[in-house]
Amino acid sequence: MTEKADIKYLLEPRTVAVIGASHSPDKIGYKLVENIISTGFAGSVYPINPQGGELLGKKVYSRISEVPDEIDLVCICIPAKTVLPAIKECALKSVKFLAVITSGFSEVGNIEEERKMVELARENGMRILGPNIFGIFSACARLNATFGPRDILPGNVAIITQSGALGIAMIGKTALERIGLSAMVSVGNKADIDESDLLEYLVKDKNTRIIMVYLEGVKDGQRFISALKLTAKKKPVVLIKSGRSKRGALAAASHTGSLAGADDIFDAIIRQCGVLRAENLGCAFNWIRFLAQAPLPQGENTAIITNGGGIGVMATDACEKYKVNLYDDLEGLRETFSKYTPAFGSLKNPVDLTGQAKASDYSSALNSALKNPDIHSTISLYCETAMFDYENLVPMIEQTQKDYLNQKKPLVFAVFGGAKTEQAISSLREKGIPVFPEVYDAVSCLGALYAHSRHLRAEEEFLEPYSIELNRIEQLIYEVRNDRRSFLLAHEAKKLAEIAGIPAPATLVARNLDQAIKFAEQIGYPVVMKIVSRDIIHKSDVGGVALNLLNRSEVIDAYEAILQNCRSIQPDAKIEGVEISEMLQPGVELIIGARKDKIFGPVMAFGSGGKYVEVIKDVSFRALPVGKKEMMAMIEETRAYTLLLGVRGEEKKDLDKVLEVMQRLSELIIRCPEISDIEVNPLVVYEYGKGAKALDIRVLLTNPEGGVK
Amino acid sequence: MTEKADIKYLLEPRTVAVIGASHSPDKIGYKLVENIISTGFAGSVYPINPQGGELLGKKVYSRISEVPDEIDLVCICIPAKTVLPAIKECALKSVKFLAVITSGFSEVGNIEEERKMVELARENGMRILGPNIFGIFSACARLNATFGPRDILPGNVAIITQSGALGIAMIGKTALERIGLSAMVSVGNKADIDESDLLEYLVKDKNTRIIMVYLEGVKDGQRFISALKLTAKKKPVVLIKSGRSKRGALAAASHTGSLAGADDIFDAIIRQCGVLRAENLGCAFNWIRFLAQAPLPQGENTAIITNGGGIGVMATDACEKYKVNLYDDLEGLRETFSKYTPAFGSLKNPVDLTGQAKASDYSSALNSALKNPDIHSTISLYCETAMFDYENLVPMIEQTQKDYLNQKKPLVFAVFGGAKTEQAISSLREKGIPVFPEVYDAVSCLGALYAHSRHLRAEEEFLEPYSIELNRIEQLIYEVRNDRRSFLLAHEAKKLAEIAGIPAPATLVARNLDQAIKFAEQIGYPVVMKIVSRDIIHKSDVGGVALNLLNRSEVIDAYEAILQNCRSIQPDAKIEGVEISEMLQPGVELIIGARKDKIFGPVMAFGSGGKYVEVIKDVSFRALPVGKKEMMAMIEETRAYTLLLGVRGEEKKDLDKVLEVMQRLSELIIRCPEISDIEVNPLVVYEYGKGAKALDIRVLLTNPEGGVK
Repeated sequence: MTEKADIKYLLEPRTVAVIGASHSPDKIGYKLVENIISTGFAGSVYPINPQGGELLGKKVYSRISEVPDEIDLVCICIPAKTVLPAIKECALKSVKFLAVITSGFSEVGNIEEERKMVELARENGMRILGPNIFGIFSACARLNATFGPRDILPGNVAIITQSGALGIAMIGKTALERIGLSAMVSVGNKADIDESDLLEYLVKDKNTRIIMVYLEGVKDGQRFISALKLTAKKKPVVLIKSGRSKRGALAAASHTGSLAGADDIFDAIIRQCGVLRAENLGCAFNWIRFLAQAPLPQGENTAIITNGGGIGVMATDACEKYKVNLYDDLEGLRETFSKYTPAFGSLKNPVDLTGQAKASDYSSALNSALKNPDIHSTISLYCETAMFDYENLVPMIEQTQKDYLNQKKPLVFAVFGGAKTEQAISSLREKGIPVFPEVYDAVSCLGALYAHSRHLRAEEEFLEPYSIELNRIEQLIYEVRNDRRSFLLAHEAKKLAEIAGIPAPATLVARNLDQAIKFAEQIGYPVVMKIVSRDIIHKSDVGGVALNLLNRSEVIDAYEAILQNCRSIQPDAKIEGVEISEMLQPGVELIIGARKDKIFGPVMAFGSGGKYVEVIKDVSFRALPVGKKEMMAMIEETRAYTLLLGVRGEEKKDLDKVLEVMQRLSELIIRCPEISDIEVNPLVVYEYGKGAKALDIRVLLTNPEGGVK
Repeated sequence: MTEKADIKYLLEPRTVAVIGASHSPDKIGYKLVENIISTGFAGSVYPINPQGGELLGKKVYSRISEVPDEIDLVCICIPAKTVLPAIKECALKSVKFLAVITSGFSEVGNIEEERKMVELARENGMRILGPNIFGIFSACARLNATFGPRDILPGNVAIITQSGALGIAMIGKTALERIGLSAMVSVGNKADIDESDLLEYLVKDKNTRIIMVYLEGVKDGQRFISALKLTAKKKPVVLIKSGRSKRGALAAASHTGSLAGADDIFDAIIRQCGVLRAENLGCAFNWIRFLAQAPLPQGENTAIITNGGGIGVMATDACEKYKVNLYDDLEGLRETFSKYTPAFGSLKNPVDLTGQAKASDYSSALNSALKNPDIHSTISLYCETAMFDYENLVPMIEQTQKDYLNQKKPLVFAVFGGAKTEQAISSLREKGIPVFPEVYDAVSCLGALYAHSRHLRAEEEFLEPYSIELNRIEQLIYEVRNDRRSFLLAHEAKKLAEIAGIPAPATLVARNLDQAIKFAEQIGYPVVMKIVSRDIIHKSDVGGVALNLLNRSEVIDAYEAILQNCRSIQPDAKIEGVEISEMLQPGVELIIGARKDKIFGPVMAFGSGGKYVEVIKDVSFRALPVGKKEMMAMIEETRAYTLLLGVRGEEKKDLDKVLEVMQRLSELIIRCPEISDIEVNPLVVYEYGKGAKALDIRVLLTNPEGGVK
């Protein structure tokens, strides 16, 4: 495989050829050439068709080899069977990019043909977009190489879509909503070029201010995470992913994987990357329309200005839902708004100008808010009243919007009423001013802006890595492999924990009764005893566990009872000994797990631990590595956090130790290629300064071929 | 107070007078008379103004006493100070209803004047709507006695609104959305007439098919619950309540109250009543527009028909969210749709007709679905494609809608695209056909219809009441009252539980060491010992508890230790003895609480119990009484349900016993006026047939005046 071509010339081609250019206007191959020419593509266009002749004023070449020019992009819209030979011709011509419009490949099970296509392209330094796409639009190249609608408003929003049908419909929708596009790329089957390639281009593209991605599935999750992380630190990324329902959940061997549906993990990871996830199309389009023009807020304080109490309370509810913070300095509110609020109005936030408010009152109040440096954004609500001077509403909003843009303060308007209100909304939308008929939609846009703005400000602090003797772990795993196992026995897992610096109760494995007594006295009473056997999985069920043994005689009785129970219930089980360990005092029980996810690579789970983790379902997820702040965020997202803070008069628990265990597990999963899953459950956490102990540790290895379950 | 007048003549008045009728067109008193006359009110209108004269062709009377007719409804729009004298005049005239438009009463703190107004009205057999309202509209009386927009489309939706500003705006919105109204009532301060009065009328009103309520607060919660229950069993009730945020949470003394914000309880109760709660206005209007015309589905199976895979998956996600069940008979799907689906489409549900589908394909597929008796509703999705014959879309949807209505099958359409799609939506909306640009909105409407339909079908089965010796409980409470307490000591609460038939561990209170030993042997080892003192609240903290005492000598040691600890730490505490009780085996721990809520009357909480209930936050709520199904639903809503079913190889737990305890607590709170709160936490539940035990019971009494905290 030769080096990948820079994605630049896919979006900024100097020359475009269309293989399958057609003379019949109802064919895709006609529509495509027509769109390219009629939208004024600045470079050269070369229609290719064995019939030759002329098409829309351009000479038609019968073969690509005849084109007297270098070609950056070839669009292919010929039957599936003829695509591979066409790609061979393109290779000879040293084409850079192939946009394969044609469908009938992996999406209908024709995987082999698609694989060959990519192989051939790569071998010849070409890259493929598609197959099974509707094309590509790029505003800077004035290129509409799609068979969708011709008129696309140029602007600063880039759209990447995995669905063709939705993509074409989105072109219409953006035109209707006056959303200008910098690029629109259909990625189809993603045989080669995928969202990550495009994000890497778009993050640097000066014409693109915001990126929307419609996604159905991810192939290379780790690369996608990197691309999203880089992009979302520069520009808002709005993502819609369908397939939230349970049917798509990944099967997984350990709790860490099975605790949540695949969508929960996906959702956690893209939020960690700073992506704004929209539940549906309506929401996504509201957000991009707003984010495409809104300035970043300089602080967290929002003022709500309303002419009705009820709608004001609704906006307050919406602010809580979408994490928009209300300005609550009563003195500041009074100073800013008292001149424009009647006595029977309200000077608390929401500020109620009352039903008597006219456009000029809104204008004055909003201007006053603009001058208050402690108010960083505003939400204006207007209920159509019998009194309101409707004709002044539109110019007032237009002017205010300009003033706010100049001062770099975001604002949203929600207006609710009948036909006149609807007209006002339409005429403002025509001008690209985002006004919403629904309060929740308006607030959700501001919430998305704040989420992006907070992500831009957040700085991660990565903890100093701990020094772990990896060679000792490799040796341990070598022995397990020699024993033809892909899981560690309890005492091996404890050994691994010890090497990795994860605190576990003192444990020794006794091979006979004398050792058992000796070890028990060495560890100190009370102790716990457990059978050690690879053949016995549910140790309690066969009477293989004894708790809270207080003295020598109880240890003797328990030792004999355990062996007898196991031998009578599972006579074939190979018994390696009996494990003696320290009996732990109660504390807060957590689960911390790290695993190599098939799609997203190393991920971590944190939550409430114990026997019933699946029932309690109190877990947060992140892709690794994570810094300290993100680990704290993981903890804070769970109910376990409250327990760690100490409730009902209890002392605060040892959070530093919890963070340390998280960090050590993270390093293990990242640095040990042979470990696929490592999970501590429960980690029993004590008071501050008293540490934590891993009561049970499960370690699974990657399968011998090195893959991940 | 005389008997309340029937609400009928408020909505169907034969005569209306307007006190404050004005000659200036910019006054409310003019607008009101103008609206009444111009919308063709069938009865007589009497404008009242001391100046007399003529207004809009009607004679103006200078006083109400001069009107030569009986008057059903008087609208009052004069300054606040003059309202009370006007009501006195109305009383002399034996008016039935007063709609007090005037504001400036309790909403600005003028509570006394409002109270007097109601008192005066009631004494004279009159009832008041308002004050602080915009008026009332009633389609059957052709009465628009509001100062809002004149043109209101008559129809089958009734709206009750607490917010005036929103209400007026809603009139405009309904006209815009072609939603016809049967009634629109502004309830304002609800000094007298409230939502419950109106629901009682509307449930019987043959012109009203669906009721929408906008609510900010509830006064008489118990009556509201009754009215909602009755109404929602006949007609869909869509409710919007603002003030979901935490600030509105009720303060409460026990877990049952404090476990959730007030809105959680409100939300649970209105759902229990069968009410459809909309989060915001947009959602509410979508629902009423759809419910006003949709037939009830005859079963749970829905088919999704689409021309794009991506949007189909989105609809599947939305169906999971809004509890719409997909038809999944593969054979049935094939038979119904194979004729209209190309080979590369999909015959699973969602049925993908592919981007090549024309209007006629949709029409055929939908008609085929109509003929399949196992498909009870359909969701059609359409992405605007380059191929679609747009001009046939509107007539196809129109015709299909008619066919489905005739066969009583509900259907929804979601269409996504550009300007042409938008035009199609507008033209269909004009005709009252609900078509949505957003898939989630379409599915949410169908979900609301299904929720209503399920509620109509659900039949509640109330359990036979248990016989409880209430006189013994009264005696016990009498003794507590005599001791000037409003809470029961632990042994008293156990006594109460015993009388009420709630199983508790065997418990005896020892007054001296000999008794302690005797009782311990009587109960059987191991036992638990606890100090009994009204002065010691946190018994563990002062060393007042000893667990797992195995024999006589441990009981002796513990008895002495407990007394010594308590005496040294709280020397002033009055010690009543030491409680000896059975040491319980572990089981599933629940919390079950019943209390008299200040607003909603008797309510019950059920959930995961134990020390950390506030952290675990796994509780469901209902208003009492509840039948068996509703109790099961309460249990199933919590994660505790999974534990009761038995996880990780455990046996199923004794659900019948849990239901019995719920029922007994319910009876106690309903039948004992003196108990304000009774809470069992934990109720330890064992395997099926082995029952449950209430480990701790807290009982609080109503305060001596009989009120509830």
